[in-house]
Amino acid sequence: MNHPLAAEPRPSVLAAPAPAHVFDWLDETAAMRAEAGLTRTLRSRGADDAVLDLAGNDYLGLTRHPVVARAAADAALRWGGGSTGSRLVTGTTALHSELEEELAEFCGVEAALVFSSGYTANLAALTALTDPDTLIVSDAYNHASLIDGCRLSRADVHRAPHSDPAAVAEVLAGRAQRRALVVTDSVFSVDGDAAPLPALSQAVRAHGAALLVDDAHGLGVLGPGGTGALAAAGLAGQPDTVATATLSKSLGSQGGVVLGPRRVIRHLTETARTFIFDTGLAPAAAGAALAALRLLRAEPARAERAREVARTLARQLAAAGLHACEPQAAVVSVRAPGPEAAVAWAADCRRAGLAVGCFRPPSVPDGISRLRLTARGDLTDGQIAEAVRIVAELAPVGARG
Amino acid sequence: MNHPLAAEPRPSVLAAPAPAHVFDWLDETAAMRAEAGLTRTLRSRGADDAVLDLAGNDYLGLTRHPVVARAAADAALRWGGGSTGSRLVTGTTALHSELEEELAEFCGVEAALVFSSGYTANLAALTALTDPDTLIVSDAYNHASLIDGCRLSRADVHRAPHSDPAAVAEVLAGRAQRRALVVTDSVFSVDGDAAPLPALSQAVRAHGAALLVDDAHGLGVLGPGGTGALAAAGLAGQPDTVATATLSKSLGSQGGVVLGPRRVIRHLTETARTFIFDTGLAPAAAGAALAALRLLRAEPARAERAREVARTLARQLAAAGLHACEPQAAVVSVRAPGPEAAVAWAADCRRAGLAVGCFRPPSVPDGISRLRLTARGDLTDGQIAEAVRIVAELAPVGARG
Repeated sequence: MNHPLAAEPRPSVLAAPAPAHVFDWLDETAAMRAEAGLTRTLRSRGADDAVLDLAGNDYLGLTRHPVVARAAADAALRWGGGSTGSRLVTGTTALHSELEEELAEFCGVEAALVFSSGYTANLAALTALTDPDTLIVSDAYNHASLIDGCRLSRADVHRAPHSDPAAVAEVLAGRAQRRALVVTDSVFSVDGDAAPLPALSQAVRAHGAALLVDDAHGLGVLGPGGTGALAAAGLAGQPDTVATATLSKSLGSQGGVVLGPRRVIRHLTETARTFIFDTGLAPAAAGAALAALRLLRAEPARAERAREVARTLARQLAAAGLHACEPQAAVVSVRAPGPEAAVAWAADCRRAGLAVGCFRPPSVPDGISRLRLTARGDLTDGQIAEAVRIVAELAPVGARG
Repeated sequence: MNHPLAAEPRPSVLAAPAPAHVFDWLDETAAMRAEAGLTRTLRSRGADDAVLDLAGNDYLGLTRHPVVARAAADAALRWGGGSTGSRLVTGTTALHSELEEELAEFCGVEAALVFSSGYTANLAALTALTDPDTLIVSDAYNHASLIDGCRLSRADVHRAPHSDPAAVAEVLAGRAQRRALVVTDSVFSVDGDAAPLPALSQAVRAHGAALLVDDAHGLGVLGPGGTGALAAAGLAGQPDTVATATLSKSLGSQGGVVLGPRRVIRHLTETARTFIFDTGLAPAAAGAALAALRLLRAEPARAERAREVARTLARQLAAAGLHACEPQAAVVSVRAPGPEAAVAWAADCRRAGLAVGCFRPPSVPDGISRLRLTARGDLTDGQIAEAVRIVAELAPVGARG
């Protein structure tokens, strides 16, 4: 038998020499980003960095909870470093099934399906629950993964004005397509505002559509005991409503999940390309998410504490003269005068020992740059005051304008 | 302040009652799949199942290697259950950086960028390395994640005949677009055949295009010491060539990686949506992949052993009268007479203690159903003989036709 690729390396002179200029255009776009103040760089962190972290999405402070870390470790020792294959082949362990059952029960839905990330969960829901005779009505401020899911689907896509149920109803009423799916974040990641889910659900029901809600920033924070935005809106378990969420925020792990009627989960299992053709979530991540979920069930006040921290943060920032949003979950944003000022502000905060997020175009749908503070439920009142002090003291000219 | 979503659940009677029929069409498609013998069901496995596993993608048998499992556990205990955010915010730990440096060095490229899955790595490469003035030439048998990446991109996409460099050259020569990217799997997952990388590279260079190779099934198996298909073809480190790979196969973990020139990695870091808007890979997965990589570097014969197991499996299956492929990496496929026969054959094998994969439409580009055997490098000759005995004894009528 002949095994060309198994052989020793061939000299690449067999082919013409590689033209060095093929990727020159990437450098040209980098120069344009630099000129616009939009350069992004990776910075790695240490395990013991002495920094107050209000930049991550660890809303309940569970990522490094010893019970969660121990559960991840135990799952790796028991099951190995990976799940070894597609969920449909070898990638479903008993741990995955246990996690799915408990997530479904907690959120009050019939069934749940776990993915390797929230991104792939959203791509799955949008592609598998639509067809060429479907109209998707998508909120203008939806997360990138929802937008990409719309693009990947074969459906017609209408971009609706942000949080405008009347506009959604009008588009649904005038549609020619047989089916329709209205898709929205439950909490928008940039400004922390909540979608009008009851009104959206009314519009959906009046026009025979379905509702898909990305509850990435709601699970663990909203609803009774953190059961999520659907529970808060009385929509959990409804036959026309589906939620997606991540395991990487309140649940301190990695991965995504789709939550909904059993027939929806079955359909995704059998047809969603990002489910069928992706390796299953690593056992350690499944174990960590399951442990975090059980902690939250045992101590449901964690959810309300995250919301309380957010309100306190926003109130104190506003009292310092800054433009803080009115948080409806655990995201607090503060307006910056521009992208470069936002970057400098965040960098100054970091030097002062406080990590905050920095949102700039194209990550902000309205073009307004912001600092983004995560209201971790495990922050003390002293840490909150310290964070506010640093942000306020280092505010650039124009931040209070 | 008003916090509608934080309140107690509202009765859903505020809205019209949910129409129960909105998702009826999903059941109709399920019935059609059932009729065609294409139903897929999830089956969870136990940690101590007594089964010989030739179904997963654990090519080097490292997933449950004690050193790999221990490294995953240690990373979780040190860093927590998740990475807490986007790689650009808080999701890059020192462990991620270490993994990227060692992957790049091992594969002989300037730089590497790790993703939460191979799926999202492929979406990133295809969307970020193309623009509306790009022609993508994509092999007809490419993996679903490459196909979806093509669909997500703004480029024109041409589907080229399988492994046909002359056809690729012709399309490149006749293109009107300024840029072109040729994309192929290095090893095709269904039949285990290898792409003609040297000839594809020649075509690419003759026409000023770039080459993107998905080395999911090559990394750890092909090239000297498992350094991958690019190294095997003398293309590692070339300025016009980019590879993607998974951490979930030979490296026994979860995640994906893009490998290539530094300018390419920088561009992906700054612009790829599935990098920017996704939570970073969990520390446990980064730790497991790094440990597996170091094991492979210390014992490079693991790669050749996987290839040897594949050749032995294929030879013995052919000697038993079955239609086995000629494996060029660690994937061995055996033709089945049809989808239902394939499912029954795989189920019979499982009852006999052997797990094998089963590929049916739409997962097979040529419509031919197959069993798929993974030639794990840690299989003994006795296990190989046992697997062949079971597959051959349980072969359905028509499998030898």
